[in-house]
Amino acid sequence: MQLTDGQRLDWLRLIRSEGVGPRTFRTLINRFGGAGAALEALPTLTGRSGRRITPPSRAEAEDEIAAAARLGARLVALGEGDYPKLLQAADSAPPLIAIRGEAAILNRPAIAIVGSRNASAAGLAFTERLARGLGEAGLVVVSGLARGIDARAHRAALEPGTAAVLAGGQDRIYPANHAALVEAILEAGGAVLAEMPMGWEPRGRDFPRRNRIISGLAYGTVVVEAARRSGSLITARFALEQGREVFAVPGSPLDPRAEGTNDLIRQGATLVAEVAHVTKAIAPLLEEGTRKQGGGFEQGADTLALDRPDLAEGSIF
Amino acid sequence: MQLTDGQRLDWLRLIRSEGVGPRTFRTLINRFGGAGAALEALPTLTGRSGRRITPPSRAEAEDEIAAAARLGARLVALGEGDYPKLLQAADSAPPLIAIRGEAAILNRPAIAIVGSRNASAAGLAFTERLARGLGEAGLVVVSGLARGIDARAHRAALEPGTAAVLAGGQDRIYPANHAALVEAILEAGGAVLAEMPMGWEPRGRDFPRRNRIISGLAYGTVVVEAARRSGSLITARFALEQGREVFAVPGSPLDPRAEGTNDLIRQGATLVAEVAHVTKAIAPLLEEGTRKQGGGFEQGADTLALDRPDLAEGSIF
Repeated sequence: MQLTDGQRLDWLRLIRSEGVGPRTFRTLINRFGGAGAALEALPTLTGRSGRRITPPSRAEAEDEIAAAARLGARLVALGEGDYPKLLQAADSAPPLIAIRGEAAILNRPAIAIVGSRNASAAGLAFTERLARGLGEAGLVVVSGLARGIDARAHRAALEPGTAAVLAGGQDRIYPANHAALVEAILEAGGAVLAEMPMGWEPRGRDFPRRNRIISGLAYGTVVVEAARRSGSLITARFALEQGREVFAVPGSPLDPRAEGTNDLIRQGATLVAEVAHVTKAIAPLLEEGTRKQGGGFEQGADTLALDRPDLAEGSIF
Repeated sequence: MQLTDGQRLDWLRLIRSEGVGPRTFRTLINRFGGAGAALEALPTLTGRSGRRITPPSRAEAEDEIAAAARLGARLVALGEGDYPKLLQAADSAPPLIAIRGEAAILNRPAIAIVGSRNASAAGLAFTERLARGLGEAGLVVVSGLARGIDARAHRAALEPGTAAVLAGGQDRIYPANHAALVEAILEAGGAVLAEMPMGWEPRGRDFPRRNRIISGLAYGTVVVEAARRSGSLITARFALEQGREVFAVPGSPLDPRAEGTNDLIRQGATLVAEVAHVTKAIAPLLEEGTRKQGGGFEQGADTLALDRPDLAEGSIF
């Protein structure tokens, strides 16, 4: 499936409308048969707040596409060939995602590595060993570009290819001093993804939201170090809900950075102490290939997928 | 059941005969109906080596009992009231065990804590926290008096009561500089156990053999730190074979002292990061009580228990 330029513009206007998240987008598309028809109907609908939903103008959407293009980012729609297949199989997959770099690597088997920003030296060293080994095993390493574990994972997997998922827009890299890392990822043939619009500064709630994309891109998520109630545990929860593998690296019970990972292992996550613990666990999945591939909305999908309500920015029905 | 002095002497002579281990002892008792009859038959039997089995003399056995008594140790027979009930339920339980100190605490619920001699500061600190907490929860801490984790576990559990199992005789404490720790254990109301005769210097093979007693005394064994192929993993294997719980404390994959414990967790051991992880796991067992209590051999037991062949010092049949 490939959207026309006009359809892409409609999709963008619809998903950028206030109160429309992936779930509402899907509901509207299913109800009206397409983004164009949904946009036409939008003025007659009210959201939960009682306010009318006004989509951004055609010009505003064109501006976003142009701004993305200037940065080398393309807006890829769910169902299109370049849309990551594993992500597409996940609930609440973003209808449109801005991709910089080599979209093709997003359809190679991937593993997410996430963890503390405030990582220990041992945690960083193990991350490096793990990311390098997974890369050598032919896996793409996905992470969130954060300080600490994430950045180390990306750096160690530059050569085989790594993918970073941003919480803000493509032009709002966070933390800002990781702009050079983004360039290194792109130069090495990796990819950088963003669900949020150009110019969007990431807020706190955008990070957990972003984490479902990290886990959704991968056969499994490895949590290297995580305190209790940390964002990495949210990524692990998403992985579990998406039916993906959850891996955790153990640590001393006296180290608060291991509390979250040790908890995960007690809850059934696979303990990872070496690269083979990951590769062996996902080998059967790789043979199986992408088990489930969602179709595009515009091709007449008439089933209403059950998305996560807590991820929609607000439902209008 | 309580042996007469004469029976106890017969038991001691039989178990101290070369080539007679717990398994052979049991076989002989079952075959001849008692230790006295087995001793009478012994000169007519040959071991695997083809040599006649000559038991120690009555005088030698009396000397051992007297020497033990001078040290405050009593030889307690399997089936007697003071014999630890949980140990009795284990395969290859020693027919006689020399006990110094408070035998009664051996019939209180116990947990074994074992680990590296070459322990890390974090491993020692966690051992202390764990042993103290288990003691406060009313559990007796059992260990092997070794340097490192074992000694720390005993020391942290002195007040509530701790039990040490020796690899050699009661008068051959190893390491020798833990003689003061033995005294402290006894003064605090704990117990020290030995399967081997007075004067027996522990050899390398006596340590794994001793480990089955450590695990056999306890509802579960916690391995705190252990390199691969370490003695603590043998204790864990015995615990598993004895149907007891196996617990392991996780550590960084970069720490060789955590390789054994992380492996155990991958194999299904319960990850322990806090005291409650142990107490919650064994709570149902405590309610159940000692599920299985072996009877004394002299009471006409005619079933041949399946002991571990590798623990017998050599079978004569």
